[in-house]
Amino acid sequence: MLHGKNFIGDRLSANGTVTFKTFNPLLNLENEGVFTEATEEEIDEAVRLATEAFRAFRKKTGEEKSAFLNAIADEIMALDQELISTYCSETGLPEGRAKGERGRTVGQLRSFADLVKEGSWVEATIDTALPDRQPIPRPDLRKMMVPLGPVVVFGASNFPLAYSTAGGDTASALAAGCPVIVKSHPMHAGTGELVASAVAKAALDTGMPDGVFSNLNSSGIEVGTQLVKHPGIKAVGFTGSIRGGRALFNLGSQRPEPIPVFAEMGSINPVILLPKALSEKGAEWATTYAGSITLGTGQFCTNPGLQLGIRGDALDAYISKLSDEILTKSPTSMLHPNIASSYDKNKAQAVAQSGTAVVADYEQEVQENFARQMVVKVSGKDFLENSTLHLEVFGPFSMIVECEDAAQLEKAISQLEGQLTGTVLAENDDLSEHASLVDTLQNRVGRLIFNGVPTGVEVSPAMQHGGPYPASSDSRFTAVGIHSIKRWVRPVSYQNWPNEALPDELKNENPLQISRLVNNESTDRSI
Amino acid sequence: MLHGKNFIGDRLSANGTVTFKTFNPLLNLENEGVFTEATEEEIDEAVRLATEAFRAFRKKTGEEKSAFLNAIADEIMALDQELISTYCSETGLPEGRAKGERGRTVGQLRSFADLVKEGSWVEATIDTALPDRQPIPRPDLRKMMVPLGPVVVFGASNFPLAYSTAGGDTASALAAGCPVIVKSHPMHAGTGELVASAVAKAALDTGMPDGVFSNLNSSGIEVGTQLVKHPGIKAVGFTGSIRGGRALFNLGSQRPEPIPVFAEMGSINPVILLPKALSEKGAEWATTYAGSITLGTGQFCTNPGLQLGIRGDALDAYISKLSDEILTKSPTSMLHPNIASSYDKNKAQAVAQSGTAVVADYEQEVQENFARQMVVKVSGKDFLENSTLHLEVFGPFSMIVECEDAAQLEKAISQLEGQLTGTVLAENDDLSEHASLVDTLQNRVGRLIFNGVPTGVEVSPAMQHGGPYPASSDSRFTAVGIHSIKRWVRPVSYQNWPNEALPDELKNENPLQISRLVNNESTDRSI
Repeated sequence: MLHGKNFIGDRLSANGTVTFKTFNPLLNLENEGVFTEATEEEIDEAVRLATEAFRAFRKKTGEEKSAFLNAIADEIMALDQELISTYCSETGLPEGRAKGERGRTVGQLRSFADLVKEGSWVEATIDTALPDRQPIPRPDLRKMMVPLGPVVVFGASNFPLAYSTAGGDTASALAAGCPVIVKSHPMHAGTGELVASAVAKAALDTGMPDGVFSNLNSSGIEVGTQLVKHPGIKAVGFTGSIRGGRALFNLGSQRPEPIPVFAEMGSINPVILLPKALSEKGAEWATTYAGSITLGTGQFCTNPGLQLGIRGDALDAYISKLSDEILTKSPTSMLHPNIASSYDKNKAQAVAQSGTAVVADYEQEVQENFARQMVVKVSGKDFLENSTLHLEVFGPFSMIVECEDAAQLEKAISQLEGQLTGTVLAENDDLSEHASLVDTLQNRVGRLIFNGVPTGVEVSPAMQHGGPYPASSDSRFTAVGIHSIKRWVRPVSYQNWPNEALPDELKNENPLQISRLVNNESTDRSI
Repeated sequence: MLHGKNFIGDRLSANGTVTFKTFNPLLNLENEGVFTEATEEEIDEAVRLATEAFRAFRKKTGEEKSAFLNAIADEIMALDQELISTYCSETGLPEGRAKGERGRTVGQLRSFADLVKEGSWVEATIDTALPDRQPIPRPDLRKMMVPLGPVVVFGASNFPLAYSTAGGDTASALAAGCPVIVKSHPMHAGTGELVASAVAKAALDTGMPDGVFSNLNSSGIEVGTQLVKHPGIKAVGFTGSIRGGRALFNLGSQRPEPIPVFAEMGSINPVILLPKALSEKGAEWATTYAGSITLGTGQFCTNPGLQLGIRGDALDAYISKLSDEILTKSPTSMLHPNIASSYDKNKAQAVAQSGTAVVADYEQEVQENFARQMVVKVSGKDFLENSTLHLEVFGPFSMIVECEDAAQLEKAISQLEGQLTGTVLAENDDLSEHASLVDTLQNRVGRLIFNGVPTGVEVSPAMQHGGPYPASSDSRFTAVGIHSIKRWVRPVSYQNWPNEALPDELKNENPLQISRLVNNESTDRSI
């Protein structure tokens, strides 16, 4: 049974008077648990504990942090069917998806456990002294990454596990040595509570300091606002809408001490349909994209919301086939009535724009909160002239832009806002013929995909999940994969520091046997 | 002879009506050259050219960028005595300092030339495909750093060469593949013009695209404001005051598309005088610090403006000796009358605070624009209660805080704003006895120095020049050393991209023979 309380470090607390419930979109009714929103005092207490915990937590060894992260993964698995049922009842997503996402979440935790146990991620850099250098000696300098301090994580509505309570942001921040306070997502507060209980238990079992993790309930914006403005908070992770992410970014940058806010926000993920790909494999791609557009009811940040091609028979055939294929898909539930109504509103806005033609519209009756897929088309000229057509329609929707020629296609790409991904469908010499266009696309995106679909974000070192604004608030970092740890750390140099007082990572004897850059050479040898 | 015009890419331009001159603080009179401030149209044109140049420049090979950077260094050296004389006449600094700073500037350019020629800095990361993985195949993913786009650099008043026109920010941004527009510092516009001519000539000689570099004159804030707000600009580098840096940071973060503004701002560089160091080597340290405080007329961002010790005979003796020693130094010129008058104003403000006692004050007559060194002391209690005492006094000034005990000393450190450096003077077991204090200090600074002085910033890979706010606007990056290139780049991933269409850095055969992370192993082998 869910208790609906906040986790303030080791302690459960529910002093507030504002309560809320989660919603089952499949059954179209509220779930049972009642959640109590955190009060100002509870928020302050969570930050105070996190600040105190930071002193001890940042000195935990990689081995100790690794044990903590693995214990979280174990505890999440131990929640078993209770977690899966709660997840499904709060999202309308099928059990298979819940289990897949749990696997991803646990996999992320374990990959950060491996990373910090191995230890080389701190980018240890050592320049030994040159006492005889002229005109002055060179000092001994040793640099490594250290954690920033307490981090606030805002969970994503569409990934209750992998990008929420113990998702990528939390896992990477804890791995870095930063205490985490989660602003739990109100749509899946029960899933959040269960996962928070797993983290709290793991922290206790592995001897982590009280306050290394807190989980705060909230149905509005007040809790998040107070957290981001709190002087004890040193960085923020967020996944969600452009409006929400930008508001938090503004709060973070307008503080007396500005802090980084990593917001992974909107993206329409353009797909470039090059001529030979359409003429040779148009039908196959249409079938594939009918699946990609409707996958997870289109509720992925990498959903292909925009496709751009050059007017002609091959593009006509592609549109026709895509329309046929997408209408064979059975509509599915959206995460929440609010998301479903936003989808309808945004779809209607796109359709109402001058020049937009609907080419596929699922018109049959559907269950409450289910999304009806739609494909529209528009001319390159209209697309270039109307920025409303560039807005994301979150759900199973895609817009096809029919350009006059390659020049107009490239111009349309150059005017796109920043994107998480850009996909190119090409055959034979398509790619070399359109090199300039691909070059333009590269400058607008974080990830380029060749002959594939943007949906599906691999968790691996070479993944970049993030792109130029507004895809991310800071394109220089990834939100997925081991390099996402870099968001939560800063370098510190030690000059002429006595060997015995240095952190192990920087000692002459290299006791952790990590890889280091010593006098500009990468090595794991001692000095 | 100086022409006083703006460099708009390949072209000299002076369409504006606002003009200004530089000032010789030693002679206390204006220098001859007349500089014309850039107009709105000239600024727009510089950004337009930079945006166009970016398309070609970002595809230049490491070898080509390396030739460009080395050519800039050669051309700067070829300016010879003209550069040195102009530098001295615009700063009042001695010729030795001018030559030293030129050496540092040229050294920085050559070290970035080496970095990009070698090529591994792009952090190439490759995860090869796993076609048989269950439940779905893993795609081939390849990631590397790419440049952000046109960068604006604001030169520093106190480093006309090493942190200005072709200084660290410009060198690192060009190395990354970002065109640079310099907002020239009005106090040394002539030095800037000469260096800009060197960069322009080097760009032409090495076949760089027109617009890869521009240099704009400005005496007020309008040119800088227009540049930072311009949608074509993608990042900003700044070295200077907290007020100026924060204003630019705010402009950058409040744009429709926010951009990173790397501001290296104020720091009072606390020095912790531990008991045994004072009792055993107090006199030596006093002599050393008398030199460090007055070095370069105290006009370094790493000047030791704050010293903290525990009340007692050893501290008294240190203060007395420091006072004697510092009064033996001959005052020297500040960079500009405005800087000299700010110094007097800020010194007076510190002295006027309740509890401040002057312990050394150079009272003899000095030449116009020369700075009179001063040392003051204050109790730990007063320091903790009055944040005005935490403000930087830019010049040959230092404040000594007499704490009651180690606990008060640690409290004073914990309440400091972020700092570039923190220094610890210690003997025998001082360091282990005060481990908690050192730990607290580490959390407030970017660089820790043991038994030394903070002045002197080595240019080497292990240097961290930057610290928690307000030392820097973003503590996660350094402004000095090869890693400063990371400010200007973002990662891009290629998924299932054809080998022949990949950048050389990511190709199977590793034609550049760079070090890459392939399937989580660091290697320079081909795939």
